[in-house]
Amino acid sequence: MLSDIIAAVSTPRGQGGIAVIRVSGRGAVELCEKVFRPKSGKKITDYPPRFSVYGDIFDGKSLIDSGMLTYYLAPKSFTGEDMAEISCHGGYTVTAMVLSAVLETGARMAEAGEFTKRAFVNDKISLTEAEAIGNILTAEGERAVRLSARHADGALKKKTEELSEELISLISSLYAAIDYPEEDLEDMADDTLLERIEDINGKCKSLISTYKSGHAVAYGINTVIVGKPNVGKSSFFNSLLSAKKAIVTDIPGTTRDVLEQSVEIDGVILRLFDTAGIREDTADEIESMGVDIAKSKISENSTELVLALFDLSREIDGSDREMIDYLKENAEAKIVIPIFTKSDETPLFDKSFVEKELGEGYTVSSKTGEGIEALKKGVIERFITEDSAVDNGEVLTNVRQLTSLKKTVSALNEAHRLVSDGMKDMGAMELEGALNTLAEIDSRRAMEKVVNEIFSKFCVGK
Amino acid sequence: MLSDIIAAVSTPRGQGGIAVIRVSGRGAVELCEKVFRPKSGKKITDYPPRFSVYGDIFDGKSLIDSGMLTYYLAPKSFTGEDMAEISCHGGYTVTAMVLSAVLETGARMAEAGEFTKRAFVNDKISLTEAEAIGNILTAEGERAVRLSARHADGALKKKTEELSEELISLISSLYAAIDYPEEDLEDMADDTLLERIEDINGKCKSLISTYKSGHAVAYGINTVIVGKPNVGKSSFFNSLLSAKKAIVTDIPGTTRDVLEQSVEIDGVILRLFDTAGIREDTADEIESMGVDIAKSKISENSTELVLALFDLSREIDGSDREMIDYLKENAEAKIVIPIFTKSDETPLFDKSFVEKELGEGYTVSSKTGEGIEALKKGVIERFITEDSAVDNGEVLTNVRQLTSLKKTVSALNEAHRLVSDGMKDMGAMELEGALNTLAEIDSRRAMEKVVNEIFSKFCVGK
Repeated sequence: MLSDIIAAVSTPRGQGGIAVIRVSGRGAVELCEKVFRPKSGKKITDYPPRFSVYGDIFDGKSLIDSGMLTYYLAPKSFTGEDMAEISCHGGYTVTAMVLSAVLETGARMAEAGEFTKRAFVNDKISLTEAEAIGNILTAEGERAVRLSARHADGALKKKTEELSEELISLISSLYAAIDYPEEDLEDMADDTLLERIEDINGKCKSLISTYKSGHAVAYGINTVIVGKPNVGKSSFFNSLLSAKKAIVTDIPGTTRDVLEQSVEIDGVILRLFDTAGIREDTADEIESMGVDIAKSKISENSTELVLALFDLSREIDGSDREMIDYLKENAEAKIVIPIFTKSDETPLFDKSFVEKELGEGYTVSSKTGEGIEALKKGVIERFITEDSAVDNGEVLTNVRQLTSLKKTVSALNEAHRLVSDGMKDMGAMELEGALNTLAEIDSRRAMEKVVNEIFSKFCVGK
Repeated sequence: MLSDIIAAVSTPRGQGGIAVIRVSGRGAVELCEKVFRPKSGKKITDYPPRFSVYGDIFDGKSLIDSGMLTYYLAPKSFTGEDMAEISCHGGYTVTAMVLSAVLETGARMAEAGEFTKRAFVNDKISLTEAEAIGNILTAEGERAVRLSARHADGALKKKTEELSEELISLISSLYAAIDYPEEDLEDMADDTLLERIEDINGKCKSLISTYKSGHAVAYGINTVIVGKPNVGKSSFFNSLLSAKKAIVTDIPGTTRDVLEQSVEIDGVILRLFDTAGIREDTADEIESMGVDIAKSKISENSTELVLALFDLSREIDGSDREMIDYLKENAEAKIVIPIFTKSDETPLFDKSFVEKELGEGYTVSSKTGEGIEALKKGVIERFITEDSAVDNGEVLTNVRQLTSLKKTVSALNEAHRLVSDGMKDMGAMELEGALNTLAEIDSRRAMEKVVNEIFSKFCVGK
């Protein structure tokens, strides 16, 4: 499957100054000789690899463009295979024609993520590095880019490799203790073995605890704003948006299935979902969106933060109470923050009643902007608890990584129990299981289905 | 103005596998040293120019991506200046961050077309080559790409240079005849001089006659479909569209100010304008669009082809006659083709009446498709009369080129008259004028305003 030559346009679709067509696989360079002729009259391979050659691009009929070609020889390329990159003019038709010319000479169209998948299969990058490349492409927040760059650079791989090495050393000690019970070496004593299991387990748990921060930075925080009619949802929404908007929001073509608006707070994306009209242009609809409509959004798995609005200028009423009850029952796994709106008016509302039920909140005025910055700071503080770990890239970012590590912890717990009970053989087997689940995070031992899933999310050309 | 360092994203805006940030100007490479560190630990300039270097990209704060950098030294680069191209991951945010990092180290944002303009100013490309690069970027039809590639490769420049050389030789002969009237050399005889003026003039006129073909291939044919209500405009429109659609039509972001649909016929774009609803989804409106509404579209300068529809199944009526009169008065400069629709029904209409007024037409049935292919062939034949000149790139494509050449012809006519009348001195001056207007087509002698106009149409990053 991986021996054929694949090709795709690797630059974004559309019109620009230049576009890049990527070709990879054994024979990729020879294939390009058929469409690309250096202006010098020499052959492509008369030039060294990694050298940018100026030339003309032909299809079967005639000259179609001129541009640059750079080729790479296996294994010194992104995919680990022979590769060529043709840089042509970035018009839509000409780019399609250059790609067609390459495809007509025998390459096939690359599938989504296939270049990166080949890099992974050829051991050029690990699984978390591949995931991080995908994240860099889709990242909206600046901090997501920085974190993904660290992961693409191997920061998380290094962390899990360290844990794996400790685990391997522990397993070998345990087998030594089983095989040579007569040797009374300190590092094979039961207490020492148990301590070492606990130590590794602690490190795994501490890595698990980085997930909330890592996920929020890498993917943003999915947020729902709820509250009874006229509580001031649309004004509140607008005062959040008045901050620097996420760069991505005004790009055509990046609209997701669910309409949303993003705010970037300290480089982290707060993604405000448009539940029947949270967008500015449909502001009126927001007020008409009662508690009922918002309920289903609150319960959704992907929702991570609920900002529950209460109107300080009105007496607490049945709608408020209903919302509190609903949140207590249905939003346990989310972070819920009460927001007391209209702080610029005479307060008639008892905050303490709400805070007793839902925790400490923030008092804001969408009119004066009072309290908005404090709220934003508070949101970030609740999600990003592991600041330096994020900066170092030593955080988990997705459920796949989290699940593997949780399995590792559970195997370590079981191993600890078995070794405590004197069942060293079975304990060693559990530790091997722990090692496997840990290795899944970054290696090709990860099940094939999972690997396919990861790469299918990439765009074509990457 | 041209000594500062400019930077821009040269790949299309959006999300893709990779993006390219281009940096040009004296010091561009040193500037890139501040944001790009080769993985090897070496400096960028430790590598030779044109070599693709793998490295990390930093802004003031931290690692933001990894990618490739290739630098070029003046004059061996696209712009003729020191240049660097940083290839990073093609996410929207990361691309913006890499560009920001470059801008923060002292580059400024490039203006639209500024890279190509610098290439022109630094004598790397001529004006028609620069225009052709712009055309490659926006070309919709395959043949437009091929023609633009020829022009970008200097085909038109070569042609005008040949003419200039002949003209220079003629001018020097004329001055020789003025200065040394006693020398009775054949190439300085009055008859010979006049013949040579005629010869060059003939070549210029023959180049002028390529304009219709060249313009149609390079920019497509702007077409309006007119006809009285229920003549079958929408069915006809759809039967034209059922051919292979232009690649560009379904790309978001390429919509022009006037809504339009394009059909590609033999690689040439027929651009059908949406005058209050020629699109499929508003088909009903077409029929309601009477002759009146279409009139203003017919008179527009940009309209090149009018397909005037007549219903074979109905008697000729006042609306038909009104349209014929209007076309005869207002569409003199356009190509008007009568189309007789509903050839599958019993004919009640006298074609000869219309053809006597508007010329030979085509009989079609949108229902069966009869006649549609013949019509398409006919349209191409009427516009593309210079097939081999198009293939060789020896055609004019835009009004700027045409105007310069028309001025040249008019100066040559005047020179011919003056020389015939024995006024060789003044004839020589006219010939110099002819040389200047000819040179305008491809050189920096073209007025600065014209040059600025040309490059401002480019996208940023090119």
